[in-house]
Amino acid sequence: MEKLKKAILQKGKVVSKDVLKVDSFLNHTIDPLLMKQIGEEFYFRFKGEHVTKIITIESSGIAPAVMTGLFLNAPVVFARKKKSLTMTDDVYKETVFSYTKQEYTDITISKKQISEGDRVLIIDDFLANGEAALALAKLMKQSNATVIGIGIVIEKSFQPGRNKLIDKGYRVDSLARIASMEDGKVTFVEEKAEIHPK
Amino acid sequence: MEKLKKAILQKGKVVSKDVLKVDSFLNHTIDPLLMKQIGEEFYFRFKGEHVTKIITIESSGIAPAVMTGLFLNAPVVFARKKKSLTMTDDVYKETVFSYTKQEYTDITISKKQISEGDRVLIIDDFLANGEAALALAKLMKQSNATVIGIGIVIEKSFQPGRNKLIDKGYRVDSLARIASMEDGKVTFVEEKAEIHPK
Repeated sequence: MEKLKKAILQKGKVVSKDVLKVDSFLNHTIDPLLMKQIGEEFYFRFKGEHVTKIITIESSGIAPAVMTGLFLNAPVVFARKKKSLTMTDDVYKETVFSYTKQEYTDITISKKQISEGDRVLIIDDFLANGEAALALAKLMKQSNATVIGIGIVIEKSFQPGRNKLIDKGYRVDSLARIASMEDGKVTFVEEKAEIHPK
Repeated sequence: MEKLKKAILQKGKVVSKDVLKVDSFLNHTIDPLLMKQIGEEFYFRFKGEHVTKIITIESSGIAPAVMTGLFLNAPVVFARKKKSLTMTDDVYKETVFSYTKQEYTDITISKKQISEGDRVLIIDDFLANGEAALALAKLMKQSNATVIGIGIVIEKSFQPGRNKLIDKGYRVDSLARIASMEDGKVTFVEEKAEIHPK
């Protein structure tokens, strides 16, 4: 997605060869128009899949997920990273290791918010080691919902997440795939022309 | 806002006379179309205020804030509840007591994401004791930005938050004001006809 790649090149900051800061448009400050365009792009990619629910994880996944839900006309459920006192229902739970934060977190979804017949699109802001997306997919497995695909805003293609997910049989659609961030420079994976150039 | 009140009556659950669960459309499952309508309503209420930035707090404030930002053409910044390893900039920090979770949390905003000249609209999902909104306003005071108003999705008007904020001179606009939840029944504050009935 060209507009997203442009934002990454113009506003992203390569902190190290593994860490990209996009806090000026995606995960601290959010650019609402770019989120809308991201939602529209996911709509084009998944509109034939009869998505009934979009699943993401707090907090940075919420903005792109809600815009995608608006276009696909599907409710969005965000997994919580910590059980709160007002969430007293039974929940599905998985444990995620965050390489960024170097800690384990429990993520939960209330059982009431997801049904056996749901066709689920998982949306997240980043794909690196795949831990968060895999945990979301496992939550869906617990609920017997069907994961029809995983939509990622920014994929660090030099890390193992994408292959882990594909090995488990999931369709992975990433809007920007980063091949390398060596020497402070972002290089994207070369791809065939997009189906919906913007 | 009539559509919001209808959602509260039809889908909200009064857990106790103080606690309303709206996890089927606002703070666990999110209804994207309702969020869009909420964003449009805040746009009508604040469009004359030359808003340059929208501030909210993770996680449940993000969806209504991003939709409001889309209509007002302003970027959205969400305060984080815990400093993460990739957020290495200097930050503004305040401490919030959550009555729901019965714990103190530090909330932070990177200094780079807010400027002295910003005209800020604070958006949050709930107003009860006013702790979160007050902390966001204090963060803005630290940055010398101007808070032009506070937009709340659901206000529990029987709790002290609204008055605390008004006493400090802030404009507070809440889309649904709950007068009472006695006996498991939601009663709204009677208000004059809305400027933009929907």
